[in-house]
Amino acid sequence: MKTGFIGLGNMGAPMARNLLKAGHALNVFDLNAQAVQSLVDAGAKAAASPKLAATDVECVITMLPAAAHVREVLAGKDGVLAGIAKGVTIIDSSTIDPQSAKAFAALAAEHGNPFVDAPVSGGTGGAAAGTLTFMVGGSAAAFEAVRPVLSAMGKNLVHCGDTGTGQVAKICNNLLLGITMAGVAEAMSLGAALGIDTGVLAGIINTSTGRCWSSDTYNPFPGVIETAPASRGYTGGFGTDLMLKDLGLATDAARSAHQPVYLGALAQQLYQTMSSRGEGRLDFSSIIKLYRTGEDA
Amino acid sequence: MKTGFIGLGNMGAPMARNLLKAGHALNVFDLNAQAVQSLVDAGAKAAASPKLAATDVECVITMLPAAAHVREVLAGKDGVLAGIAKGVTIIDSSTIDPQSAKAFAALAAEHGNPFVDAPVSGGTGGAAAGTLTFMVGGSAAAFEAVRPVLSAMGKNLVHCGDTGTGQVAKICNNLLLGITMAGVAEAMSLGAALGIDTGVLAGIINTSTGRCWSSDTYNPFPGVIETAPASRGYTGGFGTDLMLKDLGLATDAARSAHQPVYLGALAQQLYQTMSSRGEGRLDFSSIIKLYRTGEDA
Amino acid sequence: MKTGFIGLGNMGAPMARNLLKAGHALNVFDLNAQAVQSLVDAGAKAAASPKLAATDVECVITMLPAAAHVREVLAGKDGVLAGIAKGVTIIDSSTIDPQSAKAFAALAAEHGNPFVDAPVSGGTGGAAAGTLTFMVGGSAAAFEAVRPVLSAMGKNLVHCGDTGTGQVAKICNNLLLGITMAGVAEAMSLGAALGIDTGVLAGIINTSTGRCWSSDTYNPFPGVIETAPASRGYTGGFGTDLMLKDLGLATDAARSAHQPVYLGALAQQLYQTMSSRGEGRLDFSSIIKLYRTGEDA
Amino acid sequence: MKTGFIGLGNMGAPMARNLLKAGHALNVFDLNAQAVQSLVDAGAKAAASPKLAATDVECVITMLPAAAHVREVLAGKDGVLAGIAKGVTIIDSSTIDPQSAKAFAALAAEHGNPFVDAPVSGGTGGAAAGTLTFMVGGSAAAFEAVRPVLSAMGKNLVHCGDTGTGQVAKICNNLLLGITMAGVAEAMSLGAALGIDTGVLAGIINTSTGRCWSSDTYNPFPGVIETAPASRGYTGGFGTDLMLKDLGLATDAARSAHQPVYLGALAQQLYQTMSSRGEGRLDFSSIIKLYRTGEDA
Repeated sequence: MKTGFIGLGNMGAPMARNLLKAGHALNVFDLNAQAVQSLVDAGAKAAASPKLAATDVECVITMLPAAAHVREVLAGKDGVLAGIAKGVTIIDSSTIDPQSAKAFAALAAEHGNPFVDAPVSGGTGGAAAGTLTFMVGGSAAAFEAVRPVLSAMGKNLVHCGDTGTGQVAKICNNLLLGITMAGVAEAMSLGAALGIDTGVLAGIINTSTGRCWSSDTYNPFPGVIETAPASRGYTGGFGTDLMLKDLGLATDAARSAHQPVYLGALAQQLYQTMSSRGEGRLDFSSIIKLYRTGEDA
Repeated sequence: MKTGFIGLGNMGAPMARNLLKAGHALNVFDLNAQAVQSLVDAGAKAAASPKLAATDVECVITMLPAAAHVREVLAGKDGVLAGIAKGVTIIDSSTIDPQSAKAFAALAAEHGNPFVDAPVSGGTGGAAAGTLTFMVGGSAAAFEAVRPVLSAMGKNLVHCGDTGTGQVAKICNNLLLGITMAGVAEAMSLGAALGIDTGVLAGIINTSTGRCWSSDTYNPFPGVIETAPASRGYTGGFGTDLMLKDLGLATDAARSAHQPVYLGALAQQLYQTMSSRGEGRLDFSSIIKLYRTGEDA
Repeated sequence: MKTGFIGLGNMGAPMARNLLKAGHALNVFDLNAQAVQSLVDAGAKAAASPKLAATDVECVITMLPAAAHVREVLAGKDGVLAGIAKGVTIIDSSTIDPQSAKAFAALAAEHGNPFVDAPVSGGTGGAAAGTLTFMVGGSAAAFEAVRPVLSAMGKNLVHCGDTGTGQVAKICNNLLLGITMAGVAEAMSLGAALGIDTGVLAGIINTSTGRCWSSDTYNPFPGVIETAPASRGYTGGFGTDLMLKDLGLATDAARSAHQPVYLGALAQQLYQTMSSRGEGRLDFSSIIKLYRTGEDA
Repeated sequence: MKTGFIGLGNMGAPMARNLLKAGHALNVFDLNAQAVQSLVDAGAKAAASPKLAATDVECVITMLPAAAHVREVLAGKDGVLAGIAKGVTIIDSSTIDPQSAKAFAALAAEHGNPFVDAPVSGGTGGAAAGTLTFMVGGSAAAFEAVRPVLSAMGKNLVHCGDTGTGQVAKICNNLLLGITMAGVAEAMSLGAALGIDTGVLAGIINTSTGRCWSSDTYNPFPGVIETAPASRGYTGGFGTDLMLKDLGLATDAARSAHQPVYLGALAQQLYQTMSSRGEGRLDFSSIIKLYRTGEDA
């Protein structure tokens, strides 16, 4: 399938690479020439604009930092909609707000193009391994149409419902993730302060009702899980500033829906504090630093 | 093993019953005559006081609502310490604060009695089925000594460390549980307000990084999990007022340790709100009612 | 001074009326024909567009719901900048985010027009009485230039600093107001639950360190202050949805500045809850309803 | 009036001194011999126990750190109730929980002694100057009976209602104080981060709806108010650990009354964080340090 791919960052580059490996032909565009060259070396064709990347393809994928970039890439001068043929599906894998996703779908529909929002989970590791989860919002037909392309980049494709619901799924999951991670940080720090061995405590939690991914797979207490960022100084992983972005999307969406998110709003302020301390690039499990004040503050 | 058992409430009664089934002889005491009679019918011997229940036994178990009751039962007039022989181990399975547990252990030591704190998880269902988890604080020797008795009531016995660490494990786990349940309530309610099917959303969360017991086993959104209290009007299960008690123990312990618990303190206020609305007897997953204000407030 | 006035809502209409009373000639524009007619009856001249309202005047004032409206009125088709003469000052009295204020100032500067942000406090009462406070951001020269016009509508003109600082002052004050009101609601409700006479409690607070405008002038407990919205069913006053808008501006500004606002973010969720319950049009002091659950929930 | 005074700490000592100045005869007791000697030098008579301090007097005053101390001093061995004559009024000026105050009143009533709870505000400065506010809970007759003694130590005597309401007034005021101070810290820090002059911002707040004692008298931002602890490194004033004690009393009372205190519980965690950082002895306005992370964390 001939595909236009726009946005070759930490996530987009390995995703595009997996499309090439699966035999898809690729037109790529990015503002970063080095990122483009690296994909060209792997067999892609460089395009001089989103418009040209979207010309003469069967599918277009965008993977960008925020809604403003997607808008520019789609509808700006020399944008995707200026080059794309009618009927070709646009897949936006950026994590953005559901309302923008709906607006972009409407815009695409005006040009005769199906649009799906398809944000991912799985991180840079999953992007490289081709094991991402795609949460897809759009019609059942569009979901079926993009399945061959998405399955080259991920192993778990979920049809969430109409346009925007892919984004809804993503931000609701990450809202909960931001809360559970801070919750585990509280529980582990409290236990440590009260004198229990943190390995024993994690063991009990992980086989009990407090069990969660943030504890059993990604425990924020140093030394509890050897492979977690907590055991390597909170390097790598999912950055605090990225969690902060997603919590911003969640609280914004909650605001528009008049829906209270007490714990989410508080968790957002806690990650904000880490960011304001200059630690926004550390893995988000470093939130535990706020609780271990005797240790490092 | 001849055992004195004091406290035959919703948890204590089925636990005592399992001891009888396993062939242990039982002296039982409770202020509620009906509760006592029911155990006598099952083969136990009624004692007229904690002191008498503790006389001529090889082990004493207490299962009481709060630290004040444990203190009265141990050290009050006609209390356990007035009747128990030197060297007999006291097991307190009540959920109380770690500092009181340490104080009771010291009191017992003065009388020459080993003491372990051994709070449980698993609820009334686990108590009836004999599948409780015991979180045990005390010396390794005391842990080994109580193993035969505890294994008649539970299937998972964890030695947490010194005296008090059983209670620490329990309250840290339940602190996290209170937070994750409120977090799931937020995420599910937000998703519903934004138009995603709640079954689809739960499915995504349960295979992603938001995964937790509160979502995959006990989801608070009605209809998502057929066997959860949410699907039967929040009846049965673990009551909001019991969660409130445990969050009170957690925030009190945090206060004594000068340890901040931001989300825990906020979650406590949310369960408090449910309690003040007269809904303290509903299962704690009913916290989701605070988030679905268009539905029921 | 010949002035163009755009935005004749609950605040704008009485402000414009005061300008007429002070002898200023007025071109007025609003999408609502009835609002325009009412001002025409009072001596203003109707303009068919913002452009025409801004033609041949010495000053332009905008009073609009949100930044998007200001942008449209200034820079849209037939907007102010299409009609205004070079050198004429634009006063924006809308409450918007500081960054947009700066962007509008830059836009105006490109056209050769000074711009000040001048949000107000004092409510519809102050607008009618001409006793508003204006918080003005812009150069000292611009502040002096607009003084004659503003003094016809308010009695307290404060120069806050450079462009945007008028908005900063407004949202910081209202952030604090949203917090103190919820704080008074907590303290008064707790006192009532604990059995103290609420008039006595308010009297003590108002002469002690808890003293604040939300208690001594606008107490949310019914009956404490006869003239407050609390004593007339929370009608009139400053609506919950308006407080919610301002807290949204505050938390957004905090996000952009990487500045934590723990209490502000939580207060926002509490007002959000009122709004989601369908009570967003009640005065914001009705937040106390969340605390008196035995009374009304 | 011959008075027994028990508890000669930072508050009690200057209060006792003012009683001597006003011509009252004093029996004093404290565990600290130096504190006793200092009062003896000023004309008091040392008593060897609370019992002896309470013997042959017309009134007894206790000023102690917590309810446990009051209980010991009243009802312990050689306590006040062992020495006091029937009908003599006991005044407890300690800040304790309302339920303990009621319990002590009941205990005193059994011995035939009226009891009033009379916590103070005004700090060590007010204690020295004799300008304290007394919040008095008890019967109207008891209030009149203690007026002559209290007026030697304070200038504002408020009868709050029945026993315990003096404590209720105190903890509700301080709950609100803890919240408003953190709120001012948020608003001032946000303003500073957004570039407004903090003196200008405080000026606007202090004449607007955000006005409160925490801003206009005790502003936490350094340099805004020359006489405030913020302008002398947060030394002196009302310590963070004391605020933490009072917020603990407030949230405990709220728990017993099933009353949510969302902001109060969160503020408590914030002061807790300061305490855990080893800054509990700084004035409570130092809470602003949590918000100015770029500055000092």
